[in-house]
Parts: sequence; C-alpha cells; structure tokens
Amino acid sequence: MNKKFEIEQIGTIYTPYKTKDECPIQGYINPKVKGQIELFPEYIEGLETIELFSHIILFYIFDKAGEIKLSRSTFLDDAPHGIFSSRHPCRPNSIGISIVKLDKRNENILRVSGIDILDGTPLIDIKPYIPRFDYFKDANNGWIESKKNCQKPKDRE
Amino acid sequence: MNKKFEIEQIGTIYTPYKTKDECPIQGYINPKVKGQIELFPEYIEGLETIELFSHIILFYIFDKAGEIKLSRSTFLDDAPHGIFSSRHPCRPNSIGISIVKLDKRNENILRVSGIDILDGTPLIDIKPYIPRFDYFKDANNGWIESKKNCQKPKDRE
Repeated sequence: MNKKFEIEQIGTIYTPYKTKDECPIQGYINPKVKGQIELFPEYIEGLETIELFSHIILFYIFDKAGEIKLSRSTFLDDAPHGIFSSRHPCRPNSIGISIVKLDKRNENILRVSGIDILDGTPLIDIKPYIPRFDYFKDANNGWIESKKNCQKPKDRE
Repeated sequence: MNKKFEIEQIGTIYTPYKTKDECPIQGYINPKVKGQIELFPEYIEGLETIELFSHIILFYIFDKAGEIKLSRSTFLDDAPHGIFSSRHPCRPNSIGISIVKLDKRNENILRVSGIDILDGTPLIDIKPYIPRFDYFKDANNGWIESKKNCQKPKDRE
C-alpha cells in the first residue's frame, strides 16, 4: 500500500537562474553565486540559532521538472542510470536538496551562496549541514568518479 | 501562497529499531546496525547502477513524529534551537534523511548498514551520496561542535 503525504511550501528560493539551461548541476561549481531564501514569516521561530552554522541543506520541490523516467542518461553521462543512482530532477516525488553557505540571516531572510536552484523554487525544509554527521570519508563517488567535468576545482588536473 | 504537494511512499525501511528510545540520533553511532530497504517493485528500474555507490541517502517520512514545535531543546542540548537548526524529527513536512552504507542489492531490496531509522518507516526517495558534491571541508558543526557525546569515535578524547 503506497501511502500519500501532503507537503506544504514553507518559503521561496530566489536565485539568478531563470531557466534550466543557466542552472549548474551542483552548487560548488559557482560557489560565489548568491541566492536568497524567504521563509514564510509564520515559521521564523524555527530559525533560532541557525546563524551558528556555516552551511545549511535546503530541501525543495523541483516544480519545473519534466517527465519522470526511471532510467535515463544524465547531464554527466550518456550511459543510462536509474533515477535513484542520480541527482536528476525528474524523479518520483520531485524532492531536491542543495548544500549552500549561509552568509547572513536577517529575520526570516537567509542570504546564501553556492546555489544551484531555479529562481522561485518552493522551499519545503531546511536542515543544518553537520560534517560530523554528514561526511563519510570512506565513501566513493560511484559512476561520478571518472567524470572530470564535475570535479571540485582543486581535484582537477 | 503556500502551495501543497502530494508525496507518495515508494518503499519501506526495515530496521531493528521498534521504538524511538532504541533509535540512535545518527547512523554513524552504530555503523554496523543493518537495515533493509524494500523499494516497491514498480520502481525497480530506478535502481540501475546504484550498486556502484558505497553510500546512499535515504529520504523518508517521520510518520511516528509527535507534536511540531518550531523551537525546542533537542536530544543533544538543553538550550532551545529552532527546528531548522536541528535534525529533530518533529518538524514541518516531517522529512528525514539518513546516509547509510549500501552493502548489497538484490533486485528491489537494498541491504544497508549504519541505519538510524524506525522500523516500518515509509521511503520517499533515494539519492546517491557523492562526497565530491556533498562534502564541504570548510563547514563548521554549528552548536553541535561542543557536544562531545555526538562526536565520531575517532574524534573523541
């Protein structure tokens, strides 16, 4: 039995990216690109002490995503990969995450950098990014390992 | 305008944790604890090449979470923190994530270790964990920094 759950937008993500073609595949590619998160005012109490974190994880809905295909080639590889083996936006439940740098908080507005999200995207959650919990140093990069065009700058030859 | 979105369960997460009291706050605390993910068979094509990744990110609904409070003390700190500054399960939209080690895939069943999720939890997405994208070495641990009881074993004094 597939249960259903209702998710409600809690804010809006504003970025310089107006179209999918402008948007990078991951935020670290343009770490200086700024975005602004507007959390709806009724949730402001939920931001208490968030400014102690340097990075946060944004959860959002890919509301402009196209047709869902369970297996497809991706931006990074012509070979097909299952949707759960990729970060492709056209996926069941259309949930995206991005880790961004938190530059400044002003009331219910968060200024961030290193963003890779389309302008106007609906925000559904924010969690702190905690390297102590979220970094697994023995993890591999799967099929991404050999893709030179998506290495972090310092890893490139 | 708060838009609403419907999310559908795509599988079920089976673990040894039958109650909240048994469940660790994060998976790395008991890295050997095994779990099993049953993806509903209609999504099996989406797992193509997932076995190339050593770690995956499970997305699920905290369907046993209690009352949502926007600010509260947490498992790790008596001082209050906003819900978006913590990983507490009782949050708007009730979405949880866990990074787990992928030990083995058998058709639509994934055997994983390092799990911190209640038995029977509804799965809503799986994404590959990709250190190249997901690790920010200059990130701090926010208010978690000083909490010795949640350091990874090798960091402890």
